[in-house]
Amino acid sequence: MRLSQSFIPTMRQDPGEAEVVSHRLMLRAGMIRKVAAGIYSYLPLGLRVLRKIETIVREEMNRAGAQELLLPILSPAELWKETDRWDFYGKELFRLQDRHERDFCLGPTHEEVVTDLFRREVRSYRQLPVTLYQIQTKFRDEIRPRFGIMRGREFIMKDAYSFDQDEEGAKRSYQGMYNAYCRIFTRMGLQFRPVEADTGLIGGISSHEFMVLANTGEELIVFAPDTQYAANVERAEIAPPAISEREAKKPLEKVATPNAKSVEEVCAFLDVSPCRLVKTLLYQTENDAMTAVLIRGDHQANEIKIQRYLGIHELTLATPEMISRFTTAPIGFVGPIGLPKVRILADHAVAALSNFIVGGNEPDMHLVHVNIDRDFTIDAIGDFRQAQAGDLSPRGGSPLQTARGIEVGHVFMLGTKYSEKMGATYLDAQGQTHPAIMGCYGIGVSRAAAAAIEQNHDEKGICWPMPIAPFHAQILPVTSSDEVRKTSDQIYTNLYQNGIEVLLDDREERGGVKFNDADLIGIPFHVIVGDKGLAQNTIEIKDRKTGEKFHVPREQVCEWITDIVKKRLESQP
Amino acid sequence: MRLSQSFIPTMRQDPGEAEVVSHRLMLRAGMIRKVAAGIYSYLPLGLRVLRKIETIVREEMNRAGAQELLLPILSPAELWKETDRWDFYGKELFRLQDRHERDFCLGPTHEEVVTDLFRREVRSYRQLPVTLYQIQTKFRDEIRPRFGIMRGREFIMKDAYSFDQDEEGAKRSYQGMYNAYCRIFTRMGLQFRPVEADTGLIGGISSHEFMVLANTGEELIVFAPDTQYAANVERAEIAPPAISEREAKKPLEKVATPNAKSVEEVCAFLDVSPCRLVKTLLYQTENDAMTAVLIRGDHQANEIKIQRYLGIHELTLATPEMISRFTTAPIGFVGPIGLPKVRILADHAVAALSNFIVGGNEPDMHLVHVNIDRDFTIDAIGDFRQAQAGDLSPRGGSPLQTARGIEVGHVFMLGTKYSEKMGATYLDAQGQTHPAIMGCYGIGVSRAAAAAIEQNHDEKGICWPMPIAPFHAQILPVTSSDEVRKTSDQIYTNLYQNGIEVLLDDREERGGVKFNDADLIGIPFHVIVGDKGLAQNTIEIKDRKTGEKFHVPREQVCEWITDIVKKRLESQP
Repeated sequence: MRLSQSFIPTMRQDPGEAEVVSHRLMLRAGMIRKVAAGIYSYLPLGLRVLRKIETIVREEMNRAGAQELLLPILSPAELWKETDRWDFYGKELFRLQDRHERDFCLGPTHEEVVTDLFRREVRSYRQLPVTLYQIQTKFRDEIRPRFGIMRGREFIMKDAYSFDQDEEGAKRSYQGMYNAYCRIFTRMGLQFRPVEADTGLIGGISSHEFMVLANTGEELIVFAPDTQYAANVERAEIAPPAISEREAKKPLEKVATPNAKSVEEVCAFLDVSPCRLVKTLLYQTENDAMTAVLIRGDHQANEIKIQRYLGIHELTLATPEMISRFTTAPIGFVGPIGLPKVRILADHAVAALSNFIVGGNEPDMHLVHVNIDRDFTIDAIGDFRQAQAGDLSPRGGSPLQTARGIEVGHVFMLGTKYSEKMGATYLDAQGQTHPAIMGCYGIGVSRAAAAAIEQNHDEKGICWPMPIAPFHAQILPVTSSDEVRKTSDQIYTNLYQNGIEVLLDDREERGGVKFNDADLIGIPFHVIVGDKGLAQNTIEIKDRKTGEKFHVPREQVCEWITDIVKKRLESQP
Repeated sequence: MRLSQSFIPTMRQDPGEAEVVSHRLMLRAGMIRKVAAGIYSYLPLGLRVLRKIETIVREEMNRAGAQELLLPILSPAELWKETDRWDFYGKELFRLQDRHERDFCLGPTHEEVVTDLFRREVRSYRQLPVTLYQIQTKFRDEIRPRFGIMRGREFIMKDAYSFDQDEEGAKRSYQGMYNAYCRIFTRMGLQFRPVEADTGLIGGISSHEFMVLANTGEELIVFAPDTQYAANVERAEIAPPAISEREAKKPLEKVATPNAKSVEEVCAFLDVSPCRLVKTLLYQTENDAMTAVLIRGDHQANEIKIQRYLGIHELTLATPEMISRFTTAPIGFVGPIGLPKVRILADHAVAALSNFIVGGNEPDMHLVHVNIDRDFTIDAIGDFRQAQAGDLSPRGGSPLQTARGIEVGHVFMLGTKYSEKMGATYLDAQGQTHPAIMGCYGIGVSRAAAAAIEQNHDEKGICWPMPIAPFHAQILPVTSSDEVRKTSDQIYTNLYQNGIEVLLDDREERGGVKFNDADLIGIPFHVIVGDKGLAQNTIEIKDRKTGEKFHVPREQVCEWITDIVKKRLESQP
């Protein structure tokens, strides 16, 4: 493509609206433009990247035996009411009525529609297993759309749904998609990690998230470097600490701690480490009861784990008013000793402590040398906190490390959640009816493009991995002599004939402008054609990512580029 | 693809809901399924056809220098208010509000969004011309969605928009798209005709529709077989008749015609041909005035032509109440003589008559031997009627013929309608500001698939043209012997390796079921593998469209199929 005839409006200045690197670079490189909050147009350069991602996704879905279809964007309310998600989804669902006042939503996901299709068309176990997928625009009315296309309100997803006869088959389908996802992100040239994840709004039995690793990622993950274990921090299990010999119990003491409320303040005042302090967190649970959760001063509570342990869907940290109604202590001084009758849960790390410090249940007072059982009793010990670097992995191996990532894929074992509610059944060989066992599998196609940039950029711009780069090579004629122009055109034509995707910067711009735009757009190889080089019959080729420069004889340039591009494309599995 | 592992749910019975052939066959062949009125899922077989059409469209758009982008489906109301189309579009626009109560619509077309993009990004004549296109899902809340995906509420379109400096450039862009459309429909293997068309809701200066010819088409077109002239009947111009020597004027007579109101009744009563009778149609025009239009008894008025002549947007045929308030005659007896002061327009064919018959402006009375000028005066003569077979073409040549068609493409010269309203301007070489001259160009991708079926089917099912067939060949093992199975698998693998798209019917079904399904699905070549043929080392190949059968030696089958498929694909330009 010739840049002079292309709609690639690059920007020299950083746009004010961009909060993250990928957003800023996609705007500056002329890949996207905002139409409304969280709603973007993909300009030609951005669309080329999306199409490359879609092609890789499609090839691997087909290879895994999934079949592509296309479900509608307009989704009738009746189907969503069958699964109660019409209400449950709340304001994230874009809703509308047609001219006859029938209710529809814009599909944020398609479990209902695909399960409806299944129950109409599939009768027999002979038609199973089946995995259906689509690449379709999705809608989610986010409270705070942000980060460009990373968290948009209209976005492109690949979603797949598997239907099986039994658990074993469902596990095979799940594993098939898991493997396909690994191939997809590998082929895209991305550093990623599948991690154990929570099942959230979609529900189901188990799930993995696929995280593109990037320091700017929104998600925190933990992993054991010497085992396969990795998990979203929300979900990561922590092995109980090995309890070493306990200290001798010292006598309980009450200590005045005037105005020292926070962990930092108390530790500073008493000159102890936060790991000696125990926080008493009061939660209101669904049935209006209170539960106290004891967490070590240097740890964070994990409410998803607490919810799962209690088997409830909502958990609210008690407000100061609720605390003062319930105890005699102001916030910061609540402790487990002398609380009104309440369920007390202790994190493993707390249960392993002796002679620790807790709030005194009266203003400006803490208790020291506290010991469980001697001074108060607890109802349960469990894993109630957030994992952090240095914790023990639940599957053995060395201590957990942390990394940041961007979720680009998610696979779920759904079980029969949807098939039972919607009557999506099949007849087995004996003529018995069973609900199909389902899985669902998503990839954020547009988000993956942004995640690739978060992982692959430098201060000058994007450094595309070859498999998803909008072009393979960019030709930069840096002067306007006839010789330079002619040579550039020849290289352009020859590369094009070799099947290489080339962008030719034939604009009447200074070399500096062209260099800056080329670094910004981030096509993997830059072919720099100038009079000085041509006088010596050489052409400079720059590797955008490493900055390495190669001086290649004029007549070898096309072969050189063709070889390296093909090698880079093939090095993916 | 193996049919046993494919989601292609064919139906043996005709579905009750289908009104037209393509709808019925797409349902029966398992290509689409209804989700709500006018809203469909595309199953794998249907999606394959769409993708083939999209690929042809994309290649020809790119070849014509248009650049692909992707504009969002959610379209902010503000943009539509700038062009007044937020109100003008009425109930056809699907409207919704986001959680912050901001108004959006689901884009039925994207003039506003693309013009907004242009005005933000384009400054100079150096950036022109530019043509941008997308293939995107569109929405239109039809009063009566029907005919399956032919007139759906959610459908796939290719829409393109050109921006030029001047009229000449705009004409070049228009012609470029016109030529690309001719290549697209030719490559799809369809019989089609570009026809002059009315500009309708989109507005603009001139336009052509691309009609796929089919007897079941909703649109009526006229064409001159020996010239290029063809037009939608709404729009078709009619050359004025050559006026031969006029008959001598006979004296005006009043004749009682009791109860004879319709053209048929009057002609029967007076025993004359309808071409001697003149209908007087009263219309209410925008400014509440009345206009009488005189049309020959055997002709139909064309209200679009009348509107265009009067330069107005609305025209209402007078109701019986309005007629009786305005004249002394009941409906059926209105005539031009003795009407209250009113503008009278006469169609060319009426102006050429002598001694004709009109209503008498009193009950049960007509006037015969009426002559213009002698008996009443008219305000204008013009082309006010619908063309019909036998009319003279406006560009010379032989008389017009009619045909039916399905509109699958539409190109418009928009001029500055949108660019002026939205301030989409550029600076010329002298630094002067001008509005860009626009064109817009649509292809109904999903409708084209349905139109292809309307044109290519027989009583057994679909007969796909090779370029858009979901597969090139289908293998039918008609018995379940090992030899048949092994041979079928070999042919399947070999054809696949040759780049031929093959569907293998490996289901455990009787031959008859397989034959019927194969005829229904309509893949161009059927490779029938049976024990009887194999015993003689031959395999039967059937051409689905012609029904022709070829007995090909076993070892030549793959070459034979590969050759004929490639030939059929290449025979398209």
